[in-house]
Amino acid sequence: MNRQWLLAGKPTGAAGVDHFRLIEAPDPVPEPGQALVRNLLLSVDPANRAWMQGKTYRGQLLPGDLIPGFAIGEVVESTASGLSRGDIVEGALGWQDYAVITSADVTIRDRALPLEHLAGVLGITGLSAYFGMLEVARIRAGDTVVVSAAGGAVGSIASQIAKINGCRVVGVAGGAEKCQWLTDKLRLDAAVNYKAGNVFHDLKAACPAGIDAYFDNTGGDILGAALALMNAHGRIACCGNVSEYDLDQSARTGPRGVPGLLVVKRVRMEGFLVSDFFHLRSSAEKVLRDWIAAGRLMAPLHLVEGFDKTPQALIDLLAGINRGKVMVRI
Amino acid sequence: MNRQWLLAGKPTGAAGVDHFRLIEAPDPVPEPGQALVRNLLLSVDPANRAWMQGKTYRGQLLPGDLIPGFAIGEVVESTASGLSRGDIVEGALGWQDYAVITSADVTIRDRALPLEHLAGVLGITGLSAYFGMLEVARIRAGDTVVVSAAGGAVGSIASQIAKINGCRVVGVAGGAEKCQWLTDKLRLDAAVNYKAGNVFHDLKAACPAGIDAYFDNTGGDILGAALALMNAHGRIACCGNVSEYDLDQSARTGPRGVPGLLVVKRVRMEGFLVSDFFHLRSSAEKVLRDWIAAGRLMAPLHLVEGFDKTPQALIDLLAGINRGKVMVRI
Repeated sequence: MNRQWLLAGKPTGAAGVDHFRLIEAPDPVPEPGQALVRNLLLSVDPANRAWMQGKTYRGQLLPGDLIPGFAIGEVVESTASGLSRGDIVEGALGWQDYAVITSADVTIRDRALPLEHLAGVLGITGLSAYFGMLEVARIRAGDTVVVSAAGGAVGSIASQIAKINGCRVVGVAGGAEKCQWLTDKLRLDAAVNYKAGNVFHDLKAACPAGIDAYFDNTGGDILGAALALMNAHGRIACCGNVSEYDLDQSARTGPRGVPGLLVVKRVRMEGFLVSDFFHLRSSAEKVLRDWIAAGRLMAPLHLVEGFDKTPQALIDLLAGINRGKVMVRI
Repeated sequence: MNRQWLLAGKPTGAAGVDHFRLIEAPDPVPEPGQALVRNLLLSVDPANRAWMQGKTYRGQLLPGDLIPGFAIGEVVESTASGLSRGDIVEGALGWQDYAVITSADVTIRDRALPLEHLAGVLGITGLSAYFGMLEVARIRAGDTVVVSAAGGAVGSIASQIAKINGCRVVGVAGGAEKCQWLTDKLRLDAAVNYKAGNVFHDLKAACPAGIDAYFDNTGGDILGAALALMNAHGRIACCGNVSEYDLDQSARTGPRGVPGLLVVKRVRMEGFLVSDFFHLRSSAEKVLRDWIAAGRLMAPLHLVEGFDKTPQALIDLLAGINRGKVMVRI
């Protein structure tokens, strides 16, 4: 049987376990020219929640739909051209045991690499951090760089990439212990706990020379605070807005500094998707692998065992309990 | 005597005549190495109001301060190096009859050009439109381009520049007559009256292929509507936010699509000041002059006679009564 997590109902506020439904579908049977993939590691991402809100760069997720998601799997059966039994592949394989695919749906990965790296630091997570920092925020040595959700999957890699590139890096995260972890383990220069104190005041104190680049994973109040502290000609890379995914959409307002502060400070604010940079993927992966091999880049991991725990893993991620990448081993 | 308009008090909502005070100061006397300039044409700009709100790229304007502003003047007396009696100069000369300056404070202009062009289409107004469209919004032939405050000084030039570059141009303005003028006289493809109907709905109807570039002079609801209609990889040039200058600052909220829609649509949103592009000024001016000479670019003008009417000219501008550039002839 093929276990599948479906959307049971669209959350209007915080997503809960009741919004998900586990079913057992018959084993899918590939047609000639298709392959069958067994999922090994599911990547759990804030985007899984964002897709429930409405139409994005993909169609709106509707009740009864399989929850889409990025995963690493192994080809177990294939008559698809370019795919062989035993291949390790990545793709939008969904929250299920098995997926039927063609070669256009996946990318074949190097079997010699750890699966956790393929699903994390060498997958869309690490590449989002890499391209967001280097191609969108365009950090330069000496910059003061702020990263929100700095303890999260993308944020923890993005923060380290800025450190490696000679920047002064300030992470924003929820909770004193997570902030301690950012400065102790990831070696960030400072960390701001947005759940205590005043985020604008604390960020200002942590950035006495202002902010040159801000890597935004959250939107909301943290974005508003960062905007007010940007230096002239600063750059904001908009990667996600996890602070808003669990909100009633009618409750959302944007940061009041837009567009006024953008003009006054001549700030560039740019949204991106990692797929926009896939033409640069192979060289980026090589750099990331070298940094990992040299011990310069940690790939923190929050590994959940068991397919049945997948919705809870997403709920926990949205509550911010993780440090690093959340993935589910099936 | 040197007549001067001072700030009498900081407006919290809409600026009114009571926020300005006219005084007569003694004629200023230049020191050795300085020059005396007699102002001829004052450029009246939304920025005059924005500077009253707080610190921007210039210090906060305080009650009792001379109202700063861009003007065209004539050197009437000079021992300043590089400045001679009779020179026509532009600079931040302020709302007054006479200014004492050095050559670093002004740019010498070509006496052969009409003063109205120097204060408008060939000054910061036209250059803001030019650089904003071509260097920030980076329009391309075939783009659908939206311009807010399209009947205003910068907007009317920006709209025409987009037309000249082969774009489909939709102007947003307040009032049916102004919209008629945009399509009849400036030859825009469509115009949306934001004071009637629903700006999102009407803009959507006017942009069936979505928006590729948006030149934002207003911020506020028009920016919010444009954001929701941007195409993937669209560009927003943030030139000003005149819809917000006359608001109580605590009443401001930002567009709710920030940052969510920026990510989903991979939109680049960038604030700019014309001075950031002054290294490209001479070639830009040549292009603008050629377009004017060829009859391809109109320089609409709202000329007010009399220094005493300067505050009312600004109040009228903020109420949107003008078509084209507001200037005061002294």
